[in-house]
Amino acid sequence: MKKIAILGSTGSIGTSTLAVAEQFPDRFKVVAIAGGNNRELLESQIRRFRPSLAAIADAKAAESLRKKCNDMKVRIVSGVEGMIEVATAEAADITVSAIVGTAGLVPTIAAIQAGKDIALANKEVLVTAGELVMAESRRWNVRLFPVDSEHSAIFQCLHSGQRGDVKRLILTASGGPFRNHSKDDLTKVRLAEALKHPNWSMGRKITIDSATLMNKGLEVIEAHWLFGMAPEQIKVLVHPQSIVHSLVEYRDGSVVAQLGMPDMKGPIAYALSYPERLPDVSPSLDLASIATLTFQEPDRDLFPCLGYAYDALKAGGSMPAVLSAANEVAVRYFLEEKIGFLDVPRVLKLAMEAHAPVSFKTVDEVLKADLWARREAEKIIADRGLRIAY
Amino acid sequence: MKKIAILGSTGSIGTSTLAVAEQFPDRFKVVAIAGGNNRELLESQIRRFRPSLAAIADAKAAESLRKKCNDMKVRIVSGVEGMIEVATAEAADITVSAIVGTAGLVPTIAAIQAGKDIALANKEVLVTAGELVMAESRRWNVRLFPVDSEHSAIFQCLHSGQRGDVKRLILTASGGPFRNHSKDDLTKVRLAEALKHPNWSMGRKITIDSATLMNKGLEVIEAHWLFGMAPEQIKVLVHPQSIVHSLVEYRDGSVVAQLGMPDMKGPIAYALSYPERLPDVSPSLDLASIATLTFQEPDRDLFPCLGYAYDALKAGGSMPAVLSAANEVAVRYFLEEKIGFLDVPRVLKLAMEAHAPVSFKTVDEVLKADLWARREAEKIIADRGLRIAY
Repeated sequence: MKKIAILGSTGSIGTSTLAVAEQFPDRFKVVAIAGGNNRELLESQIRRFRPSLAAIADAKAAESLRKKCNDMKVRIVSGVEGMIEVATAEAADITVSAIVGTAGLVPTIAAIQAGKDIALANKEVLVTAGELVMAESRRWNVRLFPVDSEHSAIFQCLHSGQRGDVKRLILTASGGPFRNHSKDDLTKVRLAEALKHPNWSMGRKITIDSATLMNKGLEVIEAHWLFGMAPEQIKVLVHPQSIVHSLVEYRDGSVVAQLGMPDMKGPIAYALSYPERLPDVSPSLDLASIATLTFQEPDRDLFPCLGYAYDALKAGGSMPAVLSAANEVAVRYFLEEKIGFLDVPRVLKLAMEAHAPVSFKTVDEVLKADLWARREAEKIIADRGLRIAY
Repeated sequence: MKKIAILGSTGSIGTSTLAVAEQFPDRFKVVAIAGGNNRELLESQIRRFRPSLAAIADAKAAESLRKKCNDMKVRIVSGVEGMIEVATAEAADITVSAIVGTAGLVPTIAAIQAGKDIALANKEVLVTAGELVMAESRRWNVRLFPVDSEHSAIFQCLHSGQRGDVKRLILTASGGPFRNHSKDDLTKVRLAEALKHPNWSMGRKITIDSATLMNKGLEVIEAHWLFGMAPEQIKVLVHPQSIVHSLVEYRDGSVVAQLGMPDMKGPIAYALSYPERLPDVSPSLDLASIATLTFQEPDRDLFPCLGYAYDALKAGGSMPAVLSAANEVAVRYFLEEKIGFLDVPRVLKLAMEAHAPVSFKTVDEVLKADLWARREAEKIIADRGLRIAY
């Protein structure tokens, strides 16, 4: 019986993780969960999975949740300290890190320092603090299992060869809903269109990141840290059907790919049960009925965020953290319909130009760079008069 | 330095094996080669690779070759005994089994019994005597490395999971040149068209087997023995571009595939250097320029040979050997333009119907069933008046 703590239980990955736990009650026990501020969902999760510990962001909400749950043996905590308690829950064997954004960094590092294996769904943990996180993982002898479908695919494909024989990683990207748009089309993009991902049902922030290709850029940075590959050894390939989740090219010319129906339960279950594979997690893939898979190079002019990620990775130090934090701000403004789709990359470019990268020694320094970038992005949006383009 | 013996050095796989040895002179030394009756090519191979032992089928040709090669330190042998000497050459670490047809069986078993690892390109070895060959391999602690691109792909993909978690193997088939033909079109097929394989340049016999899908059927039987999978766990998928060489579906729904440009050097080098992968063996795969991969179910009505292979595997014992031997005869008649394309499956069906399968204890029994099937196929062709349909 593997005992699981979940950071971000009420989000998209969190609920899928709970679905996996529910499918295999003999294998997994959910011992601690931390949600955002969806108190009702969190309460129903507590009722269903009976963790002994639950955290909610807001202290007042925690108070109310405590009253609602007083018929159960569950301790309710709140705030960052609460998240850390869940992340490091003594009973847990593995902590699922699925809080979106920089908010996931502190509790994830706490989990690593408590010796928990990590099922990593949060991109920002590695994007903002990859060097620190990898060093801590080695120090505490903790394994990081990727939960992103692309990195899970790479992780699976890397079993087919020795690390020294890997030539490059090929991350696939759906290309988002605007893959075939012109620059002119992009100026007119509305929020509702950007939120319509062709293949995956995900959270709002990551859906926008998919439309700008920033998501793929963040995944390039993540792959760099997870798999120890240089930026030039990580390639992005647009594959609109999202069936081939990613590929590894070996130096002999052989390419190994992982395929499957778009479904997050697969990578989650694999991270939780590795090296075993559990039965009937994801729907079966029928390639004859899918019939056609297509591939194309990403349009880097149209989607400059992808190139910014490579630039940030090459600049090193705090630059990826600045890119990611500025992106969180820009996407929030776009989600609030206060800036246009093409303003998102503009904000990132200006924020990166205003930043001289420093190297990180502590998480506090990461958070400081993060905060700087958020303020800078806000300032850029205010100063430059970036606004809805339509 | 790995020392290699090659059975079938003058054939398609043999010459590709020599090309690999030539590309990596610091890793491989060719110590023994056996060719068919192409004396000139064999002589030039001896000059280039300087093996200490070489075999040619015909005794007279051996005499002539001896004279031609009297300036070199090479012993020339002939006949089945000569093939066995090459297969078991004391200096060899691994024997490449690349003689086409049942002729490869006896020397390959001899190599196994001499404790040589086997790079297996000959299909008939496992098709006709799979149970015996696998038992001998276990007994002599010998590893069988598949050289067929499909089985090499499966072998690579099987590294991504535990054996108990494999749901099924998916062998891809180009579908051959007549993939989109109607039954009526097939009655008019001429030899020259059947010899035009869309993607692979191979020997004549295997090219015809690709056009009838018999090749894929034989590969299903081979996969059964190599990977210990039941017939219903082995699926065939038509993939005309021959880029995805085969796939493994795991029980969690994850599918792992191996891709590459159609090039036999890749699987050969992998079999010779496993688990390492050698640099720049096959041309790099550029999926964006290939752009489209398609998949469809095989048409079992149009290409009944595929179904016959499953039937033979289920019937067990000597039936696959009978199918394979009858197919060798039928294809020979087709290559001599004495019977039509659709006569090939007819001969196989009638031969199988005339056979009551027995189980094998010895290689002699395999050869006896093989001989029976050849005679039966000849008889069928003579008796039933099968002839060129055009």
